[in-house]
Amino acid sequence: MSIEKLLKPKSIAVVGASSNISRVGGRLYNHLIQHGFKGAVYLVNPRHQHIGDMKCYASVSDIPHAVDTLLIAVPANAVVPVLEEAGKANVKSAVVYSSGFSETGEDGRLKQERLEQTAQAFEMSVCGPNCVGVINFQDRIAMSFSQFLNVPALIPGRIAFISQSGALGGSLLNRAQDKKIGFSYFVSGGNEAVLDSTDFMEYFIDDPNTSVIMALLEGVRKAEKFLKVSEQALKKNKPIIVMKVGKTAAGSKAASSHTASMTGSDEVYEGIFRQQGIIRVHDLDDLYLTASAFEKSQLPRGNRVGILTSTGGGGVILTDKLVESGLSVPAPAPETALNLKRVVPAFTSVSNPFDLTAQLINDPELFKKALNVFANDENFDAVIVAASMVAGELSEKRASFIIEGVASIEKPLFTWWAAGSLSAPGMEKLEASRVPYFASAAQCVNALTALVKYAGFKNKRKSRDAGGLPAPLAAEKEIIALLTSSQAGVTEDKGKQILARYHIPVTVERSGQDLAAVSEIAENVGYPVALKVISPQIRHKTEAGGLRLNIKDKTELSTAFEEISANVRLYDARAEIEGFLVQEMAAPGKEVIIGVKQDPQFGPVVIFGLGGIFVEVLKDFSLRRAPLSETDAREMIEALKGYPLLAGVRGEKRSDLQAIVRALMSVSRLALDLKDMISEIDINPLMVYPEGQGVKVVDCLIIKKH
Amino acid sequence: MSIEKLLKPKSIAVVGASSNISRVGGRLYNHLIQHGFKGAVYLVNPRHQHIGDMKCYASVSDIPHAVDTLLIAVPANAVVPVLEEAGKANVKSAVVYSSGFSETGEDGRLKQERLEQTAQAFEMSVCGPNCVGVINFQDRIAMSFSQFLNVPALIPGRIAFISQSGALGGSLLNRAQDKKIGFSYFVSGGNEAVLDSTDFMEYFIDDPNTSVIMALLEGVRKAEKFLKVSEQALKKNKPIIVMKVGKTAAGSKAASSHTASMTGSDEVYEGIFRQQGIIRVHDLDDLYLTASAFEKSQLPRGNRVGILTSTGGGGVILTDKLVESGLSVPAPAPETALNLKRVVPAFTSVSNPFDLTAQLINDPELFKKALNVFANDENFDAVIVAASMVAGELSEKRASFIIEGVASIEKPLFTWWAAGSLSAPGMEKLEASRVPYFASAAQCVNALTALVKYAGFKNKRKSRDAGGLPAPLAAEKEIIALLTSSQAGVTEDKGKQILARYHIPVTVERSGQDLAAVSEIAENVGYPVALKVISPQIRHKTEAGGLRLNIKDKTELSTAFEEISANVRLYDARAEIEGFLVQEMAAPGKEVIIGVKQDPQFGPVVIFGLGGIFVEVLKDFSLRRAPLSETDAREMIEALKGYPLLAGVRGEKRSDLQAIVRALMSVSRLALDLKDMISEIDINPLMVYPEGQGVKVVDCLIIKKH
Repeated sequence: MSIEKLLKPKSIAVVGASSNISRVGGRLYNHLIQHGFKGAVYLVNPRHQHIGDMKCYASVSDIPHAVDTLLIAVPANAVVPVLEEAGKANVKSAVVYSSGFSETGEDGRLKQERLEQTAQAFEMSVCGPNCVGVINFQDRIAMSFSQFLNVPALIPGRIAFISQSGALGGSLLNRAQDKKIGFSYFVSGGNEAVLDSTDFMEYFIDDPNTSVIMALLEGVRKAEKFLKVSEQALKKNKPIIVMKVGKTAAGSKAASSHTASMTGSDEVYEGIFRQQGIIRVHDLDDLYLTASAFEKSQLPRGNRVGILTSTGGGGVILTDKLVESGLSVPAPAPETALNLKRVVPAFTSVSNPFDLTAQLINDPELFKKALNVFANDENFDAVIVAASMVAGELSEKRASFIIEGVASIEKPLFTWWAAGSLSAPGMEKLEASRVPYFASAAQCVNALTALVKYAGFKNKRKSRDAGGLPAPLAAEKEIIALLTSSQAGVTEDKGKQILARYHIPVTVERSGQDLAAVSEIAENVGYPVALKVISPQIRHKTEAGGLRLNIKDKTELSTAFEEISANVRLYDARAEIEGFLVQEMAAPGKEVIIGVKQDPQFGPVVIFGLGGIFVEVLKDFSLRRAPLSETDAREMIEALKGYPLLAGVRGEKRSDLQAIVRALMSVSRLALDLKDMISEIDINPLMVYPEGQGVKVVDCLIIKKH
Repeated sequence: MSIEKLLKPKSIAVVGASSNISRVGGRLYNHLIQHGFKGAVYLVNPRHQHIGDMKCYASVSDIPHAVDTLLIAVPANAVVPVLEEAGKANVKSAVVYSSGFSETGEDGRLKQERLEQTAQAFEMSVCGPNCVGVINFQDRIAMSFSQFLNVPALIPGRIAFISQSGALGGSLLNRAQDKKIGFSYFVSGGNEAVLDSTDFMEYFIDDPNTSVIMALLEGVRKAEKFLKVSEQALKKNKPIIVMKVGKTAAGSKAASSHTASMTGSDEVYEGIFRQQGIIRVHDLDDLYLTASAFEKSQLPRGNRVGILTSTGGGGVILTDKLVESGLSVPAPAPETALNLKRVVPAFTSVSNPFDLTAQLINDPELFKKALNVFANDENFDAVIVAASMVAGELSEKRASFIIEGVASIEKPLFTWWAAGSLSAPGMEKLEASRVPYFASAAQCVNALTALVKYAGFKNKRKSRDAGGLPAPLAAEKEIIALLTSSQAGVTEDKGKQILARYHIPVTVERSGQDLAAVSEIAENVGYPVALKVISPQIRHKTEAGGLRLNIKDKTELSTAFEEISANVRLYDARAEIEGFLVQEMAAPGKEVIIGVKQDPQFGPVVIFGLGGIFVEVLKDFSLRRAPLSETDAREMIEALKGYPLLAGVRGEKRSDLQAIVRALMSVSRLALDLKDMISEIDINPLMVYPEGQGVKVVDCLIIKKH
């Protein structure tokens, strides 16, 4: 399907055209003309012969010329017939503004299905329905009824903007263009019946006029494609900046009822964004400001920031925010003071933040030289210049110093200006320049942090495949046999056998049917041991009284055997007892959890956290989609707030992080290999020992798909 | 000292007046005249007879009229002589703009001391030195050289603004007044040699023209007064909104080098702000936006927010941010749907967020009725109305609907408008109204959250005194004897005896000198016991091998005794062994930590956290200043991220929270009683048992002041 024709039509027909510009069909034509569409426009409406001095056709098939794109603003019931007619007339793309589809319930959903089928039958690229449309800023083709198009002129640029919210999309365009931020395209796909955000993303990644993509998302429909496209984006160096709404459960509920979008669990999106190098912002203004910063700036080599400021308080605020964001504000290199002295002989010392003296601020040549010396300090990977109250012409001069000063600096240089309208001349000059400019310290630091993290991500990015992991130790058939040996569930022993086939170390253990067998095994395993009932019906053995730990000898074993048998019968008389598992008592270590869940869109995801309360009370866990690369697995460990516990605090030994990495990667492979059969895995705990001493699965639960 | 005269002078003399308006002495006169000062102005400069057509006096004593306030812009060396002369002429207040004082090192510090002494000698209210000055918006007296005064007109209002940063202060005024936010006063006190932020705060609390105080602070100089003043503010219902900079260690370093301000530890400020009901914001724009919201809005009764929106996506974003801020977005009451149906018969259902239909949006009467019904839903304590892209006149109409609709609603109603300049007519109308208006969802939610938290604080606020706590069980003399029994340090047993005198439960224990004594004690205490060396030189017994836990019988005790004795001799041959402590093995419980530290400004502060890694790795602790009220102590417990562990999770019993509250309050009293003798207390762990079963100090360390 040709998105190209949709976005860059040479001829357009407005179906449902109207002379009333308060109606969608009236606005569409007006917007096209107002913003200077150069191609042919045809109006279609059987109820008119003319609209203004334009001829009006009764139907699409009456148009005696080829039409690239249809803009459809007719009632929902009339949309499919129009599309069919257009299809027959060989029109290859359309934007459907009409509402009354899947956002309105079952009847609308059926209409939308027919729309989709029609589009497919005719291989037609359709945007919508229920959308505000598309704007091509580069060629000034305004195919939208958004009131944003009341602006006097479109500012073209290199940012493509995909918005799943039409109203917010128009609002953000307005705010961004107020700040002179230009766009290549704007697309708001409404119900996304045919083309969705991912399809447009794919197009923009190959578009030579687009260098950054920003998206306001409620959810992703085509998960696999989204992953593929985000890989492409990394390869082509096109950052994707996302504001994803519906973060909280309550917000997510609001999102589902709002459009027909399927909002996935926010934690899964968060994990996948991190894994795919997608930059997530958390406020609307950050979306276009960060996108613009990416568009204007080179990437920093590291996270060390120098601050040049004309307000001491501003320097402190920036420092606070940079440090909170994980960036650093190091001391300048010793030679910088010397170099500055050469420029400004009266000069005595330099610090970071560097608070400019009145002399430096007011002399353009000195300012430029000082900026140059300070910014080129090798201890800084990026520089922020902060300005405060400077009124009128003076502000314009200050902006000029900065813009000219930047020319010789080969690292990102951001500006923050704290003042208001009195400094507008200077601010507007910066906005129009290639220097990223911010009216808020927080927004400045947020954008710079995004650049630093993206650059860091790209630097350490390794191959995404799970290469380096050996194949399972058994044929798939054998593993499936373990998984399916009981209809009711996968017992702990079978679960561990499966994990072991994937090179994941488990406790030494064997099962027996009666006390005699169990005693013999205990002798071989060596006391102390744990004894656990094996029953596919009993998922939670502690609850059922189905296990005893730290059994020291044969007598204790015998008691434990009797007690467990009795407990389990009492707990669930119908539970089928397959046997008893005798297990070594694993040496104490750090307890961690590895889990797997199936996300309805993204498939198996792996969850990692520290044992017990860390995951449950503090929600301190990380999540990534399977398969995990080594980098993914390492990041999952380092992402935990409790990571210092594993890295070693208070003189404790460092845990065997490499063994956790291997276990995570292996679990991710297992989860993917068996994704059609397993719905959940819960390894809890995985005991982690000091560096070089590995890990060991102590208990695990595998839940099959029904 | 009369701040009144400083802020509301009827006659002003500018000392160091200049005809050059690029100089401070030139600007000051200009600003006074430009903004319409109605009183008498005298210029002083021995080098001129006239400046423009104004007479210029050679010195202050030459002025033949009474002068209320001097504005001093002469070199640092000349400041004190001018003050002396003015003092003799009975001038009672002055603003000193001149720099070259404590911000420049030792020589400047001495100059500042002389300035301070002079002011005191003449009982003169002095603002500065090194400041940008004072603006009285109500009476339009602009006593500042800030370029902010280039604005065409001052907008008066009811917010007093105290800024420790002159440049940022002017910048913020500019931004706030751009949004039509008015002020009563602006004060930037520079080095605060005489009058400091707290003095001005005190004045504004009694000022009938001020209803909200906002402050940009780096630190507080007069800690005791600050506490007193914040109490007054609560009583007089004048919220104090603070942006405190220097949060991180790096930022705090930048703050100290910037002015002579003493930046305290940020955690202490954070604790004290919470304890005193001071609202802290974390971004500059939030400062005036939140202050303005407090000025315009009544307080909400609770935290339940209803959202009325014309953009579905906007409703989701608000919901996300409200829930993240701890507010709730509940379903509407059942009758609301019925009531709405009466207003809009076509209407079928209502939810929260409530996404307005086109019909409701475009009909002013319907909109007002719907807003009225929705906002008066008893399930909501506050309402946010969200608007997006509406251009030109339409936006003005929308704003009018909202402003008129609000009239009949008796709860806070905030507005957020996502669009940009196209909606400016509507936004400006809202800005000029009494409806709190925000251009950003985050700022809207931040401000509403501040109102909710402040209202909650006021509701549950109890008396601040530590009433209800019984007096210590011993005379001060006896307690001091325990504290001073050894020169070298306070041993664990003495420490616990002190705690016990303050009604804090400790382990059963006694000390003996030799094995025989120790054995006898162990029999009485009952095995298992712990044995610990008592030595004032050994603070960390584990490190020294100076303790054994879980000793089960006499034989083990004897071994332990020998081992400890040997270990300690090896660890520190000079350590004086006072004896051995035999201690019951406390039953396992939840381990928490109570600490006390002396803050150089605020005196003893109490720290509370969960044991071990929670405090050290996760930095999960709370802090309040002594003495703690019951409310303070309870809040300290509930503030922990790990609080669910104490409240009971996963079917565990609730811990004895009331016993922790009592222990915290008692420790706070102890810390205050003995604040001149104790520098640190570390109770680690305090064992906490299930509800009704109390707490017990297992180990403690008290460090004396030197």
